Amino acid sequence: MSANLSALQEKYLQAKAKNLALDMTRGKPGAEQLDLSLDMLNLVTAIDYKTAKGEDPRNYGGLDGIAETKEFFREFLETDSADEVIVGGNSSLTLMHDTIAKCISHGTVDSAKPWGKEEKIKFLCPAPGYDRHFAITEHFGFELITIEMTNQGPDMDMVEKLVASDASIKGIWIVPKYNNPMGTSVSDEVVDRLAKMTTAAADFRIFWDNAYTVHHLSDNEDVVKNLLHACKANNNANRVFIYGSTSKITFAGAGIAAMGGSVANMDWMRKHLSFSTIGPDKINQVRHARFFGNYDGLKKHMKKHAALIKPKFDIVIDILQKNLGGKNLATWTNPNGGYFISLNTNEGCAKRVVKLAAEAGVKLTAAGATFPYGKDPKDQNIRLAPTLPSVEEIKLAMEIVCLCVELADAEKNA
Amino acid sequence: MSANLSALQEKYLQAKAKNLALDMTRGKPGAEQLDLSLDMLNLVTAIDYKTAKGEDPRNYGGLDGIAETKEFFREFLETDSADEVIVGGNSSLTLMHDTIAKCISHGTVDSAKPWGKEEKIKFLCPAPGYDRHFAITEHFGFELITIEMTNQGPDMDMVEKLVASDASIKGIWIVPKYNNPMGTSVSDEVVDRLAKMTTAAADFRIFWDNAYTVHHLSDNEDVVKNLLHACKANNNANRVFIYGSTSKITFAGAGIAAMGGSVANMDWMRKHLSFSTIGPDKINQVRHARFFGNYDGLKKHMKKHAALIKPKFDIVIDILQKNLGGKNLATWTNPNGGYFISLNTNEGCAKRVVKLAAEAGVKLTAAGATFPYGKDPKDQNIRLAPTLPSVEEIKLAMEIVCLCVELADAEKNA
Repeated sequence: MSANLSALQEKYLQAKAKNLALDMTRGKPGAEQLDLSLDMLNLVTAIDYKTAKGEDPRNYGGLDGIAETKEFFREFLETDSADEVIVGGNSSLTLMHDTIAKCISHGTVDSAKPWGKEEKIKFLCPAPGYDRHFAITEHFGFELITIEMTNQGPDMDMVEKLVASDASIKGIWIVPKYNNPMGTSVSDEVVDRLAKMTTAAADFRIFWDNAYTVHHLSDNEDVVKNLLHACKANNNANRVFIYGSTSKITFAGAGIAAMGGSVANMDWMRKHLSFSTIGPDKINQVRHARFFGNYDGLKKHMKKHAALIKPKFDIVIDILQKNLGGKNLATWTNPNGGYFISLNTNEGCAKRVVKLAAEAGVKLTAAGATFPYGKDPKDQNIRLAPTLPSVEEIKLAMEIVCLCVELADAEKNA
Repeated sequence: MSANLSALQEKYLQAKAKNLALDMTRGKPGAEQLDLSLDMLNLVTAIDYKTAKGEDPRNYGGLDGIAETKEFFREFLETDSADEVIVGGNSSLTLMHDTIAKCISHGTVDSAKPWGKEEKIKFLCPAPGYDRHFAITEHFGFELITIEMTNQGPDMDMVEKLVASDASIKGIWIVPKYNNPMGTSVSDEVVDRLAKMTTAAADFRIFWDNAYTVHHLSDNEDVVKNLLHACKANNNANRVFIYGSTSKITFAGAGIAAMGGSVANMDWMRKHLSFSTIGPDKINQVRHARFFGNYDGLKKHMKKHAALIKPKFDIVIDILQKNLGGKNLATWTNPNGGYFISLNTNEGCAKRVVKLAAEAGVKLTAAGATFPYGKDPKDQNIRLAPTLPSVEEIKLAMEIVCLCVELADAEKNA
């Protein structure tokens, strides 16, 4: 055994002896972030609850939201009109799941038949990506095709080649800005190529989950080109479904979600929604609309979030740099926004790192979770979620993560 | 033309000249009913928002609800444990739709394959019944089979005969108490026969929409036998999905909904829900739990509703009795609870009555809406929804409705 390996093992045993219980698994806002929106709970009361137009939000009706939240999400999702927006319940994940469910049961406006009547459906999954996206399409029995993520977005050479020839490929998952887990954003070129590419399936759909569109961590904000505009310019207006929510803006469990797209797509969704609901919770929409005031109010609010979580991202990056920098053991992202840092170990080490960290009291997202079927072909990607723990907890956790990276690598080369 | 017909036509023209604009179409609570729950909006504030156990409801998590609302709905849905309950978003209709969607995409715990992979699916629709139920199953392409409603519930001789021999019949819609539109409740015998009957389909499901379980209009409350218990006693524990919500208890747009059933059924639903949501709006659940306090609080609250809407039901019945009583022109129900009165004209008159009333400024639910495919084979059923208009408006509207019944009948016999 090399001196290095035994020294690392010694250090690891010492770390383990501390009996820590730290969690960096999920992208949950911290309590102090939730506190930023507490005033919202006081903005609708027994004597003051009506919409901006003076309508009563307490009764049934209003399938796709009240006017002021539709306008809010028109700006948020960057659509051209409020008709291109549907405001839903508390979860954009539900809207995505339900869109796919309706594609399966009935087909899109451009489908010859319901997706469920096709022999086989395939879906493109740029990876590393968001496990809950991949899980929806796996749950419905689609074949998931991994697309390599570059710093510009999905590998478009591969995307274009696949969708041009295979009509069973019906869609692609994309988080355009500050994506999960890399924190990078798609380039203008990727947007243009997505909008323009020829697809063998006439009903190909881009699921554009703009979850982090206002979640900047720096004044150097990423700007993503408007995909709906690009699709319209290329006569592919129906190609994209856009999603967003206030889950990581107000309350993660009690925010409001919305989707956007061409009027044809939104009318299709409204028609299907009319069978499953009479309408969303409009009182919570009033609460949100009053809290933000307008879109500038949202931007100011997001700066408060950034002030709280930027130090957490900084400490992760600092410790990674201090402990692993220049050692050829790992690379990591340093995003301008979003909720995650993506750590890549050398090949074949990620699972071992996550296991070692868990045994030393630091829970990390399962290795492989960021890939289709939970399988990272190179076993190297680890998603770090720094928002929920405190700075002190992150310090402790990251020292251990770095130690585990060193140890796993040394074990492998022993 | 008979003297009677011309006299009725004369009266109708006079009524029309009043240019009324009245609406008795949908089962919406009136504004004064919504006012009963206004205090709920003050019960969660920026400094006081936690669950009974002191948990923070603002973040992600809690797939099937917080403890106190699960317990509340355990009583409401009459299940044996909180594990037999899932608390969802703001709509029980959504829970019903989604249950069926999951049966189609994946099948129940007792299905050999997903319903969507079957050649044909049929569904039993006791009628007159709730149009939105029928619409869900029609939307998914099921064949709807009309079952006659008796005062005891669905015609069980027919139900038993059909389900025993036809494995493509996968379920039945039932509103057990104060049903829409008749206001009647199922008898103990119907409950027992539903629980006991032999079904050719191993995965046959009863969709038990207990929408009006606490919506009494009289101290003479209907009591419905517990179907889940009866199913368990007959080794058919998975046969029933139970639904309910506070839509017509607190706020129709911003209430909370829940479903119940065997642990196997609820675990099945929880598993599927885990792909489509991270959890429901828990803050609104805190609000509701605090508002009711406990189940007795709910009962007291419902008495306030009854005090507001009973006079509306009474005036409908009074005017029907005064104008149509003893004339062999129509029959109607006089329910102990619920949201509707069902009016049956003589055969072949309902559409004409609704049209005449509309032209005289009184909007009624479309004739036929209470039957599968919107087609009432005898063209005689009209659903009256008295909760939204004021007593004065109902008086005006019902005088016209009665006149239209007389006129339509006279026209037919002319």
